[in-house]
Amino acid sequence: MNKSLSVSNLLGISDLNINDLNLIFKTANYFKEIINRPIKKVPTLRDITIANLFFESSTRTKLSFELAEKRLSSDIINFSAQYSSLNKGESLIDTVNNILAMKVDIVVLRHPNPGAAFFLSENVNSIIINAGDGSHEHPTQALLDSFSLIEKFGNLKDKNIAIVGDVLHSRVALSNIYILKKMGVNIRVCGPKTLIPRHIESLGVEVSYNLIDTLKWCDAVNMLRIQNERMNFNFFPSNREYSQLYGLNTDVIKKIKNEIIILHPGPINRGIEISSEIADSDQAIILDQVQNGVAIRMAVIYLLAKKININD
Amino acid sequence: MNKSLSVSNLLGISDLNINDLNLIFKTANYFKEIINRPIKKVPTLRDITIANLFFESSTRTKLSFELAEKRLSSDIINFSAQYSSLNKGESLIDTVNNILAMKVDIVVLRHPNPGAAFFLSENVNSIIINAGDGSHEHPTQALLDSFSLIEKFGNLKDKNIAIVGDVLHSRVALSNIYILKKMGVNIRVCGPKTLIPRHIESLGVEVSYNLIDTLKWCDAVNMLRIQNERMNFNFFPSNREYSQLYGLNTDVIKKIKNEIIILHPGPINRGIEISSEIADSDQAIILDQVQNGVAIRMAVIYLLAKKININD
Amino acid sequence: MNKSLSVSNLLGISDLNINDLNLIFKTANYFKEIINRPIKKVPTLRDITIANLFFESSTRTKLSFELAEKRLSSDIINFSAQYSSLNKGESLIDTVNNILAMKVDIVVLRHPNPGAAFFLSENVNSIIINAGDGSHEHPTQALLDSFSLIEKFGNLKDKNIAIVGDVLHSRVALSNIYILKKMGVNIRVCGPKTLIPRHIESLGVEVSYNLIDTLKWCDAVNMLRIQNERMNFNFFPSNREYSQLYGLNTDVIKKIKNEIIILHPGPINRGIEISSEIADSDQAIILDQVQNGVAIRMAVIYLLAKKININD
Repeated sequence: MNKSLSVSNLLGISDLNINDLNLIFKTANYFKEIINRPIKKVPTLRDITIANLFFESSTRTKLSFELAEKRLSSDIINFSAQYSSLNKGESLIDTVNNILAMKVDIVVLRHPNPGAAFFLSENVNSIIINAGDGSHEHPTQALLDSFSLIEKFGNLKDKNIAIVGDVLHSRVALSNIYILKKMGVNIRVCGPKTLIPRHIESLGVEVSYNLIDTLKWCDAVNMLRIQNERMNFNFFPSNREYSQLYGLNTDVIKKIKNEIIILHPGPINRGIEISSEIADSDQAIILDQVQNGVAIRMAVIYLLAKKININD
Repeated sequence: MNKSLSVSNLLGISDLNINDLNLIFKTANYFKEIINRPIKKVPTLRDITIANLFFESSTRTKLSFELAEKRLSSDIINFSAQYSSLNKGESLIDTVNNILAMKVDIVVLRHPNPGAAFFLSENVNSIIINAGDGSHEHPTQALLDSFSLIEKFGNLKDKNIAIVGDVLHSRVALSNIYILKKMGVNIRVCGPKTLIPRHIESLGVEVSYNLIDTLKWCDAVNMLRIQNERMNFNFFPSNREYSQLYGLNTDVIKKIKNEIIILHPGPINRGIEISSEIADSDQAIILDQVQNGVAIRMAVIYLLAKKININD
Repeated sequence: MNKSLSVSNLLGISDLNINDLNLIFKTANYFKEIINRPIKKVPTLRDITIANLFFESSTRTKLSFELAEKRLSSDIINFSAQYSSLNKGESLIDTVNNILAMKVDIVVLRHPNPGAAFFLSENVNSIIINAGDGSHEHPTQALLDSFSLIEKFGNLKDKNIAIVGDVLHSRVALSNIYILKKMGVNIRVCGPKTLIPRHIESLGVEVSYNLIDTLKWCDAVNMLRIQNERMNFNFFPSNREYSQLYGLNTDVIKKIKNEIIILHPGPINRGIEISSEIADSDQAIILDQVQNGVAIRMAVIYLLAKKININD
């Protein structure tokens, strides 16, 4: 296995090869051990400054990155769109170039526009980590999802994994499809027709509109959240109807025989895409995903920062 | 004296026994010395991560907790309601469980709902410190008020302490009544009838509607602030009328003979509940309270964090 | 050269003598070297706590101060107007005195009111650094501008420097005029009549309304930004007309023979006061200014903090 990543930025899962994935998982494993010790920090990146640029609100992803950065002992500056001089008409490139001129090493970018992280990486001279770009990719989420599955299953090859819900608007779905394909997983997406992108089969996934069938087939299911804030008109009659057809609850679980693992990227809408009993059951590994998120982000930051030193 | 607290959270003064109070005061004394040295920090809690969850705006309490945490060398993550995924319909328990899954050790919670800190402590597995829950309790404020009085008087037993103003909406008043009772203080509350809760005598306090009488009686007075933002209709005709009847100013001070100590939880409304001359006089220990706030919060955090290690 | 500043605060350039300027530049030079090393930090101010009080939004100045403070290893607390108890009617002095009671050593103040930093320095007992007070002064900006010019020219004595644009509303212009005069520079301000303050010649500067003439005359030009947010009515017909008469672009540059250095305080309005080609050309030292800003702020904070220790 290579000791360094093939990429200089983390823009999306689609850029990573299988060696990169294995290296990230192995490194995350090491950091997960660290954050479960009484002393949860390493002094490794004391000489690195990281800017978290969030042009879209976020609680968990932002806190997860911040904690990952703190536990690597790096210096951090944060800013959110509402405080930025973007209000004064400055371009994204100018904003970032200004921050980089202050000797910032890594930029973590969350942006509502698909492709924003890639665009930035082409136009500025810095390490860019994509923390979600519109409905395009959310690579650290996909990495932590796969890492959590590997913890449960070991090798994912030939496993059956379903992704259920609003696949159309979901960067989580897309990044998950990319990563699971690379690991030899059989993927099925499931949801109402209006929320499944046309031609998604071209990515090598199966499509189903029946939740029970899908659950009977799979070893694990990733229940996407209904993102009301991302839908500009109604894609299904009501949350209640959605819940009846595609919500995961005790009735549904009783109908299937196999014991499946349940993932959710959070924040969960209890009673809509997942019921409280299921979300709090042992089958659901939602909080493992959150913990693994810190370890994965530590691994990604560490591996990308290491490349600066190699190049120096 | 015991070396550890009888509680695992700081939810309210009502849970603390006299040994707890003495232990907190003794520890705060030690930290007050530290923060008055040229090097104001100790490396004690380098392995502790603290989340400040403020669901209600606050300047001084938030800054005071943050400084206390920094001077204990702990790692800190902050978030305020406006950035949170609560907007996305997530429950308080889910938000906190997610933060805890990232290996956070202590949650400092400010919340508009009375009982929020207790509710959380029953439902999540973490140390909770109540930084104000609606009109219920504000225990660190009461601790710093008492600590400031002890600095002036030594033992508080049998002292006469008055609490003047909007007792009805004040978590500061309630927490102060609890703590002063435990220390054997005689308490009188004073204010317009509309702002004194019915049956408050059942807590063992006297009630007066006359400011001059009350001040003549007491050794120290805690002047509550008029919290316009907490009143949903008018409890008295105008700020001017309130000030004439219950405001502390030079005229009032001249009418009483005894030299009383004046506390105020801040921020002060100059010219309403307290005049500028009085607020800036030597009798007022408002800024001592602020400084003691950092020491008290360091003590509380330190003592609660120590319990994790003992249990480990 | 003296080893310490003649002032205890940085309120404005007008208070500094030439020894102060040289000491700041020499110290900034040292810190610029530090921030270009792999380890960009010094432990020098580990015992200092700094409060950044921003009552006006700002991206770059705030981040620059924060990074300067972090690289000196000081403890930092931030607050912005929207979170403050100023909403609860507290005065600026009370807010700051409360923060100081928590044992804060240095206050960095950004405020919309001209004179706010001076007013504070007269009324509280702390080191105050002015990070911009309304249309009055922005001393660290002027220091970094001069520092950037010195890097290019060495001694500035008898150089010709132009300041172009909205001089009327610009604290950057005023602070630059003060500092450049002290260093023996010939200054010319240039812009539409409505944006040049009357009687500005009394500060010892020339006035011109012709951009080409001004550029032919100067060795360097500081292009101010059009601050739409500061203008309460229109001072010129349109941005387009402004750009045609006072915008710096390739056509303008072709008309002058001399190779001038171009500064801009940022954020730039591309296509208004400066064209993209010019902003991104080698003549423009805009990003050097940004980098130098961190070094200058480290120098100012370091030199003022050193005075506390001397006085102790």
